Amino acid sequence: RLGYGWDSAHAKYPGLIYCSISGFGQTGPYKSLPAYDLVVQALSGLMSLNGPEGGPPTRLGVSIGDLGAGLFATIGICAALTERAKTGEGRQVDIGMLDCMIALLENGLVRYLSSGEVPHALGSRHPSITPFDAFKAKDDWLVIGAANDHLFGVLADAVGQPQWKSDPRFCSVNARLENHLALKVEMETALNTHSAQEWVARFVSAGVPAAPINHMPQAAENPQVAARNMIATLQDPEMGELKVCGNPIKISGYPDSAQRPPAPNLDQHRPNILRALGEEAEAFKRTKVNRAPKHPIW
Amino acid sequence: RLGYGWDSAHAKYPGLIYCSISGFGQTGPYKSLPAYDLVVQALSGLMSLNGPEGGPPTRLGVSIGDLGAGLFATIGICAALTERAKTGEGRQVDIGMLDCMIALLENGLVRYLSSGEVPHALGSRHPSITPFDAFKAKDDWLVIGAANDHLFGVLADAVGQPQWKSDPRFCSVNARLENHLALKVEMETALNTHSAQEWVARFVSAGVPAAPINHMPQAAENPQVAARNMIATLQDPEMGELKVCGNPIKISGYPDSAQRPPAPNLDQHRPNILRALGEEAEAFKRTKVNRAPKHPIW
Repeated sequence: RLGYGWDSAHAKYPGLIYCSISGFGQTGPYKSLPAYDLVVQALSGLMSLNGPEGGPPTRLGVSIGDLGAGLFATIGICAALTERAKTGEGRQVDIGMLDCMIALLENGLVRYLSSGEVPHALGSRHPSITPFDAFKAKDDWLVIGAANDHLFGVLADAVGQPQWKSDPRFCSVNARLENHLALKVEMETALNTHSAQEWVARFVSAGVPAAPINHMPQAAENPQVAARNMIATLQDPEMGELKVCGNPIKISGYPDSAQRPPAPNLDQHRPNILRALGEEAEAFKRTKVNRAPKHPIW
Repeated sequence: RLGYGWDSAHAKYPGLIYCSISGFGQTGPYKSLPAYDLVVQALSGLMSLNGPEGGPPTRLGVSIGDLGAGLFATIGICAALTERAKTGEGRQVDIGMLDCMIALLENGLVRYLSSGEVPHALGSRHPSITPFDAFKAKDDWLVIGAANDHLFGVLADAVGQPQWKSDPRFCSVNARLENHLALKVEMETALNTHSAQEWVARFVSAGVPAAPINHMPQAAENPQVAARNMIATLQDPEMGELKVCGNPIKISGYPDSAQRPPAPNLDQHRPNILRALGEEAEAFKRTKVNRAPKHPIW
């Protein structure tokens, strides 16, 4: 509408990489429809896989419709940048939020496409591994993931129920899946003797993957989260010290600081950006070998 | 353990881009601990934001711990490829699944870090916009996202309740948030007169974002999903025709086919890959200008 569509921008700047993110993408019968995160979570079927078993369909507790589209868009832009470094050609990257949700359905979609079975929400439970779920201990919840017979045996010993290993209801992956409700009752009875924290310590030291189900304070103060600089600090000239999320992409040779610069003011970096783009375009024009661009970038 | 760590691989192949994905990354006190999707969903606090309001913490219905790590890893690798095209330098990309979950917490984490408020699961409801939720119509569920006063007015008219617009409980964004339970009761009473499908058609034509809450069959057969080739077909020499998920990253100049080749057999492409890598390294060695590598890739 403003005259910055792909066709006109590409004609003027053949090296430009142009990415659009919309609810449904630039093609297809829905291309002009509005969307929100909630809409694509619903249409994609994602909500039908999330929430309590037998309960209402539940939106995922984070805006995965927005976040997922941003991640796939970034990959598309980076792929186009890698190609442009060789050819000089710009590309249009067309991301639809609904497409991205379909791409994140994983076993729910594959299960349906391969068998016709319609999967449904299972609470915290894994569709094909038992026990792999959230369990209530004496005071709080924890997760336990005993993904094979060996880990299940270690778990049975750790909770003082070694007879589970030879119980015909629980002695194989398939038996445990079939009897997951009975096993959950027995496990929660056994776990009710100690706190979630005590059980997690015991399971982790025995080698059974387990964890507390943290809320934001425990997550933000977790020592591993701190060690990885995943909570960063910035000094904003107007708002003072703020804590924000760190960068999960750690690349050698690039400092991963726990301090981040504040967001720039409007147009604060404009001259620097224009200068850098000009230099990049000049450097590109001087490149004459087989990886030279067919067109200047700008 | 096998002698292919970053240090030895980098020394031998300075242009190699090396990515590791693990539960907790290559540094920090948890670096050697095992993890699963379930474990990082729990530790990160993500599960505390998901599921019914007041209900148990709920694992997200897809393995976002695995999927998220894969997406961030891909971005890290692509970023390193873009740099290597300029410098020839390889990089180590170090991805921890827990870090990636922290990076996907969005408003739940920011809300806690900025205000100290501990957010909790809200079912399908948005934390700050009302109505933006799943609602039950006569026969089935639908989602409705009326994100501002204008859309709420259109919604009120569409359900034949124009008096909502001047009702002091509902007449502003804050009032609706405060009275979200009362509004939900009134909306579901009004919606109970028609099917979800009828309401969705009415809302979409009035411009209010709304959608059916699909299960896998409706999602897989959706006309937009079909038009975007998000369900692709492959002919496997052993298993016959299979349907699989398509690619959500659409890039101009690259065909986006609804047919995909089958997965190769073990080592089927080995000679082609080795030949292509050799040619790439040779081309790189011949490049002598300012974007020439300091080291050969291989």
